[in-house]
Amino acid sequence: MTPKLYYAPGTCALAPHICFEEAGAVVDYVRVDVGKGEHLQPDFLKLNPNGRVPLLTTEKGSLTEASAIMGWIARTWPDARLAPSGDPWAEAQVASFNSFLTSSVHAHTFASIFRPGRFSDDPALHPAIKAKGLATLKDQFAVIEDRLEPGAWVHGAYSTSDPYLLVMSRWAVRVGEDLTAWPRIAAHAERMLERPAVKAAFEAEGIVFG
Amino acid sequence: MTPKLYYAPGTCALAPHICFEEAGAVVDYVRVDVGKGEHLQPDFLKLNPNGRVPLLTTEKGSLTEASAIMGWIARTWPDARLAPSGDPWAEAQVASFNSFLTSSVHAHTFASIFRPGRFSDDPALHPAIKAKGLATLKDQFAVIEDRLEPGAWVHGAYSTSDPYLLVMSRWAVRVGEDLTAWPRIAAHAERMLERPAVKAAFEAEGIVFG
Repeated sequence: MTPKLYYAPGTCALAPHICFEEAGAVVDYVRVDVGKGEHLQPDFLKLNPNGRVPLLTTEKGSLTEASAIMGWIARTWPDARLAPSGDPWAEAQVASFNSFLTSSVHAHTFASIFRPGRFSDDPALHPAIKAKGLATLKDQFAVIEDRLEPGAWVHGAYSTSDPYLLVMSRWAVRVGEDLTAWPRIAAHAERMLERPAVKAAFEAEGIVFG
Repeated sequence: MTPKLYYAPGTCALAPHICFEEAGAVVDYVRVDVGKGEHLQPDFLKLNPNGRVPLLTTEKGSLTEASAIMGWIARTWPDARLAPSGDPWAEAQVASFNSFLTSSVHAHTFASIFRPGRFSDDPALHPAIKAKGLATLKDQFAVIEDRLEPGAWVHGAYSTSDPYLLVMSRWAVRVGEDLTAWPRIAAHAERMLERPAVKAAFEAEGIVFG
């Protein structure tokens, strides 16, 4: 059975999508229309009770969470060299960075900006929650900027952390940030956008390039 | 150099602490007084610019994020059998569950309850943010309850997901939830509390057992 990646364009599903492209994997990409609430329909909830993309299905079942899907891609297509192999400390550093993006940057900060309704049912409170998210974003991007080495990928060699960081830096632009405040993150995004795998994933999801 | 685990009692650092006890590892446990703001002092921020526990230091440097530290423990002490070894799909399922706890349950929900100041600077908004967190907690625990098999560990065999789930179920009790609403989660916590490694970690952190 060909693996199926359920995605919505420009969401964090873009990160495993890029990893599949890097690996040259044959994958069926299934677009989920979040605007129409397809992620909350019974058929989808049967596959992922959390009602979120990305979702991967294979003959073995369902796999959720962007970082876990990317980890599986890295292990299953080792020739793509998406993870440091055989060194538990180096592997843990990739897991650590991806966990920071998943939890602090996505579930906390970007969710506050994109989905303040997750934090209060009262729309009157949403502007304050969004504003706090935008302030936290600057703090978190400053931490990421400090740890990046100029001209290198996040962990030196290319890894799953790089497509994941690209998704976050694109989101920062989308919410009005100017990446020039973080020159290493800006340069990282530019180098990413030159990669054929990134161009292919953007084109497949219908994301305007740049 | 003996690994050092920087922790604050009862935080998510308890999960890697239990894993170290399961492995019988020799570790220096360094208590960080979060109440006194020790996690925001320059010496600590040099080791973890995010100002969070858990933090692991070894002769190789710093490692942050509970799930990444647990992954490293599982790889470094394979005899403790804290992870399914050699099967990328099974390993990814552990990573997926831990990522869900890190992002959705901790960074989103419990942070809303314990640290509403992360989502708004205005204390007048905190009760609404906490209330939304408590409602979301019920939804997320229902999803976890559904996926647990009665009498089994989270993934069948014991793994890093089990201490991590125990930390979340203890937090649920701490915020006033009655675990009997989720009998499989309640039974999981009871089985966990019988393990010598769990008792040892609780005692070392000075957590009242039960």
